[in-house]
Amino acid sequence: MSIETAIAELAPRFGERLSRAEAVRAQHGADEAHHAPHPPDAVIWPESTAEVAEIARTCSAHGCPIVAWGAGTSLEGHVIPVRGGISLDMSRMDRLLEVHAEDMDVVIQPGITRKRLNEELRATGLFFPVDPGADASLGGMAATRASGTCAVRYGTMREAVLALEVVLADGRVIRTGTRARKSSAGYDLTRLFVGSEGTLGIITELTLRLHGQPEAISAATCAFGRLEDAVQTVIETIQMGVPVARIELLDPLTIRGFNGYSGYDMPELPTLFLEFHGSEASVAEQAETVGAIAGENGGRGFDWTREPEARNRLWAARHSAYYAQQSLRPGARGYVTDVCVPISRLAEAIAETEADLAESPLMAPLVGHVGDGNFHLSILIDPEDPAEIAEAARLAGRINERALRLGGTVTGEHGVGLGKRKYMAAEHGEAWGLMGEIKAVLDPAGILNPGKIVPGN
Amino acid sequence: MSIETAIAELAPRFGERLSRAEAVRAQHGADEAHHAPHPPDAVIWPESTAEVAEIARTCSAHGCPIVAWGAGTSLEGHVIPVRGGISLDMSRMDRLLEVHAEDMDVVIQPGITRKRLNEELRATGLFFPVDPGADASLGGMAATRASGTCAVRYGTMREAVLALEVVLADGRVIRTGTRARKSSAGYDLTRLFVGSEGTLGIITELTLRLHGQPEAISAATCAFGRLEDAVQTVIETIQMGVPVARIELLDPLTIRGFNGYSGYDMPELPTLFLEFHGSEASVAEQAETVGAIAGENGGRGFDWTREPEARNRLWAARHSAYYAQQSLRPGARGYVTDVCVPISRLAEAIAETEADLAESPLMAPLVGHVGDGNFHLSILIDPEDPAEIAEAARLAGRINERALRLGGTVTGEHGVGLGKRKYMAAEHGEAWGLMGEIKAVLDPAGILNPGKIVPGN
Repeated sequence: MSIETAIAELAPRFGERLSRAEAVRAQHGADEAHHAPHPPDAVIWPESTAEVAEIARTCSAHGCPIVAWGAGTSLEGHVIPVRGGISLDMSRMDRLLEVHAEDMDVVIQPGITRKRLNEELRATGLFFPVDPGADASLGGMAATRASGTCAVRYGTMREAVLALEVVLADGRVIRTGTRARKSSAGYDLTRLFVGSEGTLGIITELTLRLHGQPEAISAATCAFGRLEDAVQTVIETIQMGVPVARIELLDPLTIRGFNGYSGYDMPELPTLFLEFHGSEASVAEQAETVGAIAGENGGRGFDWTREPEARNRLWAARHSAYYAQQSLRPGARGYVTDVCVPISRLAEAIAETEADLAESPLMAPLVGHVGDGNFHLSILIDPEDPAEIAEAARLAGRINERALRLGGTVTGEHGVGLGKRKYMAAEHGEAWGLMGEIKAVLDPAGILNPGKIVPGN
Repeated sequence: MSIETAIAELAPRFGERLSRAEAVRAQHGADEAHHAPHPPDAVIWPESTAEVAEIARTCSAHGCPIVAWGAGTSLEGHVIPVRGGISLDMSRMDRLLEVHAEDMDVVIQPGITRKRLNEELRATGLFFPVDPGADASLGGMAATRASGTCAVRYGTMREAVLALEVVLADGRVIRTGTRARKSSAGYDLTRLFVGSEGTLGIITELTLRLHGQPEAISAATCAFGRLEDAVQTVIETIQMGVPVARIELLDPLTIRGFNGYSGYDMPELPTLFLEFHGSEASVAEQAETVGAIAGENGGRGFDWTREPEARNRLWAARHSAYYAQQSLRPGARGYVTDVCVPISRLAEAIAETEADLAESPLMAPLVGHVGDGNFHLSILIDPEDPAEIAEAARLAGRINERALRLGGTVTGEHGVGLGKRKYMAAEHGEAWGLMGEIKAVLDPAGILNPGKIVPGN
């Protein structure tokens, strides 16, 4: 078998850095969400671009699938090797290669995680703002075009990546982009690889744009009697042009999850978590403006704080949302949705979703990066119960179709993976076919993360 | 001949909207820069996407080149039909289709120019910030990934385009992107077409991101004794994270050009033009901060004003720079360079360039979007004198090679066109070949703006 031939060729070369142990394969055969697992035939831990290129050449010659693996925190089954083959665990390629503090950029290997990157940057006065919650690897974040809580102010991985080194399916190593802030020098290959989920090439190096640590940071929370009032506050804040750094919506169920999971004691009401970055004066001005908007929309108190401790506690809660939500139903897994709509349609999208949920037997807490028009349900299911899986799929289907009808997308930040592929034709029309044509040129043998994103394979 | 066959088929269909008149062909055979003109065989003014698709199908069948034409303001020969064929003049597809004020986006046809777009948006409280100086068409600006004076704050066409409708070489019509602010739904085809200079498809509709008109705007100028002190002021301003809306460097020659061309009376010194957007308080704070930085670097007076009239006068001067510079030598044309480097290397890039110029017989005024690390020379040449053209090419070559050595790009915003193609291999290495492979899939017959961007054709 061709996979076996590839592994047999690579095994002596990689020694202990190639494993076929069942536990290791199982670990690399699942992500954090509800998708059915499928193990790779082997896992390899490369340590250099040259090794990745060697693996690509061998796998290309033998038609053996390669699935890149970062931290395994993705939620749409991207890393599940549905056709077997090799999981390429990038965790040993985790070096910070260059910090250019004067240019506010950094060159890294893909295996470094975002928390470690920010720890290493602390002394420079700079930080990397893309924050999906999970401590994901930066390579994985680029591959899924991740974003998260700070995207409303600082953009997503689309804006954050300045340049890439990529190993192509045939082992060629290319570099895209430069450290210059902008360029009109030909096709934007950097943006083509960002979000390609390992189906066009393996990212082996990234140059990322950094930002200055803000002079002042303040955080705020505000509870509302009705979900729609919280949403209206968000819409007005964005439309006023307030440069909020984070603006997150949490529904009463999610707050109940925090209270139980992390021992908080917040009123179980629709709540906004906010953060403001800027000068002392600007942060105060922003908080005042948003406080006034919230007040006009019936916000109950607008508590803001400059205390780092209170702030960290708030965002630690927010980052635990996925787990806190699952704790609402012990043993459950979250079937997670990820739509993003134009902000003028956000209230409608959420209200119709809530109406769906009122008629469903399943519990589905909601959180949202609402400043971008992006929100998630975590539909809590018993992963062993086909009826519950079917009901979650039905709810998710309605949410996704609604997002498309409202001019939005079925995935704001989680990516396509296994879960969203069936919506690609509806979202992209003929352009989906074009994605397939591009994939066929870059990966004619279809060895890079097969079964994902494009039609057919 | 295949071009003749295509035109013969299209002529009865388009009537007076297809012209073979010599003057019309000559007008569509040149841009505003020094590149040798070459006329198309015919010019067609399409009025709908369906017509563009029909032209593409006919031209595809007969191997007839198609070169899209916006306002003809590009500087690298992008619109010059070096293989003849048809110039597709998009000026009749210039409608504003939808304004979504609540979502801060707009849907337009490609022929509308940026000034008209902003006039039409005035009453909405929104504006479109990408400002390359020339009153370019938005389709052309997307095709060249244009930017200009406001990019330091608001980004380039890369960030500004949310979605596109594109006619492919074979006449298929695709839509890329949605009105959602972010998406992880597959390959970023929007960014692939932005900057592709009409070589991958013809843009027939654009959805653009808008911004709120700032509550307060102030402008400032500051002159310096030495160019390096002005550059150092820029570097420190950016590194401090001051959100300047514009920060432009003009050398003494350019100021002399303004004084003569537009009747200004500014000291002929290296000068920064700045603009600040924000709340009243934030604008004052920004001006104060930058004023202090300029003072520490020897800036001579830091004049700032809230007067719209003085501000408009300033930017009218800036926008006339290309013509003001040419007026320094009557009859001359500008041979324009466009490098962009990491900001830490900007001082070095400019100083070495100035040293080159000191030894050259040619005059070459400098302006720069220096907040991005991007600057232009306009090397003033007699377009009929081969020796001067050769000297300009030699100077430009040194500047471009230096930019690559310093980690930058040969084109920050003007695009590749005819002028920068020879540097693509040096800038992109093997990735340039990949661009050619992608072009071959999307345009197998090579009819879309042949002779541009990719290797070979």
